[in-house]
Amino acid sequence: MYHTRIEPRVSETDGVGHINNTTIPIWLEAGRNEIFKLFTPDSSFKNWRMIILNMNVDYVSQIYYGKTVDIYTWVEKVGRTSLVLYEEIHQGETLCVKGTAVYVNYHIKEKYSEPIPPEIRKELELHLRK
Amino acid sequence: MYHTRIEPRVSETDGVGHINNTTIPIWLEAGRNEIFKLFTPDSSFKNWRMIILNMNVDYVSQIYYGKTVDIYTWVEKVGRTSLVLYEEIHQGETLCVKGTAVYVNYHIKEKYSEPIPPEIRKELELHLRK
Amino acid sequence: MYHTRIEPRVSETDGVGHINNTTIPIWLEAGRNEIFKLFTPDSSFKNWRMIILNMNVDYVSQIYYGKTVDIYTWVEKVGRTSLVLYEEIHQGETLCVKGTAVYVNYHIKEKYSEPIPPEIRKELELHLRK
Amino acid sequence: MYHTRIEPRVSETDGVGHINNTTIPIWLEAGRNEIFKLFTPDSSFKNWRMIILNMNVDYVSQIYYGKTVDIYTWVEKVGRTSLVLYEEIHQGETLCVKGTAVYVNYHIKEKYSEPIPPEIRKELELHLRK
Repeated sequence: MYHTRIEPRVSETDGVGHINNTTIPIWLEAGRNEIFKLFTPDSSFKNWRMIILNMNVDYVSQIYYGKTVDIYTWVEKVGRTSLVLYEEIHQGETLCVKGTAVYVNYHIKEKYSEPIPPEIRKELELHLRK
Repeated sequence: MYHTRIEPRVSETDGVGHINNTTIPIWLEAGRNEIFKLFTPDSSFKNWRMIILNMNVDYVSQIYYGKTVDIYTWVEKVGRTSLVLYEEIHQGETLCVKGTAVYVNYHIKEKYSEPIPPEIRKELELHLRK
Repeated sequence: MYHTRIEPRVSETDGVGHINNTTIPIWLEAGRNEIFKLFTPDSSFKNWRMIILNMNVDYVSQIYYGKTVDIYTWVEKVGRTSLVLYEEIHQGETLCVKGTAVYVNYHIKEKYSEPIPPEIRKELELHLRK
Repeated sequence: MYHTRIEPRVSETDGVGHINNTTIPIWLEAGRNEIFKLFTPDSSFKNWRMIILNMNVDYVSQIYYGKTVDIYTWVEKVGRTSLVLYEEIHQGETLCVKGTAVYVNYHIKEKYSEPIPPEIRKELELHLRK
């Protein structure tokens, strides 16, 4: 799986005193940077491919400012043109968030879904969740 | 249903050129302000009640900077201590996002879920989705 | 001056209990939407012109969730290619933020600063701060 | 000086194609985490001290997605109750942002400015900008 370590920011908390729920999708997207790079090696937006179709997030436990969090990103399934990810956020020993995200490999200028190329598929399958 | 009109901000777009997917949960939460006020009439965080348990978002169509969007928030179901919302975002004639959110009426200091009071239940049921 | 009304969002607060300081530049930028439209009437990013050079913000008084805020945007000075704005944020009777922003009219693809066209200059001067 | 390395996020870009200007204050605040910890060692918001009074940011050069950035935070001056920081953001060899921030050591519940304790002052002075 892919692993990203994040240091929570004051601006990511809310008045209730924990990390705000809307910060979670931002962190999960940050955890997909290596996958984005597979599809767009030069990180340029004019060659961008990955477009999100669905996001599902379970908020399991509160996350606090002052302690790093770990984002884990597994590949759940590689379809012909789409990709399902399974993601978790841990803080210390605690599982705080689990969720899924569905992406499609989309040619933005020409507006069609492209098959995921075999070399990217092979790389993604190294991160398959058992 | 509840209705909130939002003017997209430049900071809410991303390099691909549309509203970034992580902006959507922020807008949907903004659309719940009237519901938060039902549970915490003084809008103070020390009396805060609504804690999110799950969020599910379908990204149906891209949203553009430069044109207002409408957030619609229906009550899908009122449980004993929890609440399911159904939400849509439209830009002009286009349905761009649909999703659900599950909240629990939680006493944060004492750490237990409280039954939703009858007067709030009655108010919420005025916004039930048929 | 330009006037924008904003409803604070829970996600814009922080653990201290007020609107986080990093939300302020986001709101101030939102208050410049009409100015952006003068320079880019179709709101497209490929024709974008306004690039920020400097921002200065005085945090005068805390801003609270639960009460609308008003953003006021004056034109302080129109230079040959650049523009100085003076901005205030009020919540009810309280002045909460004052600041300035400097923008340049920049041709992004060709990488040079363009003179501000006379018809835009005339429109901006209607919003000059006395 | 304090040093924080940050991996830019897609959500931190905007339609123009670079990191949005409103992301910069968020990163600069992230760069102050160690200073916040000096004043609030348990990172709890009920013991929070550092309140921002002014922020000034010069946008020197565009920042791009796909390459880490380095935040450098110097102490410019330690006053009786307040603190001036000087901050820079670099991406590779390029200076992209420079700015200052003024904070006060504020007792939020009792609403008064407290003198900066000698042991914190000593620690801060290790990070003075020459």
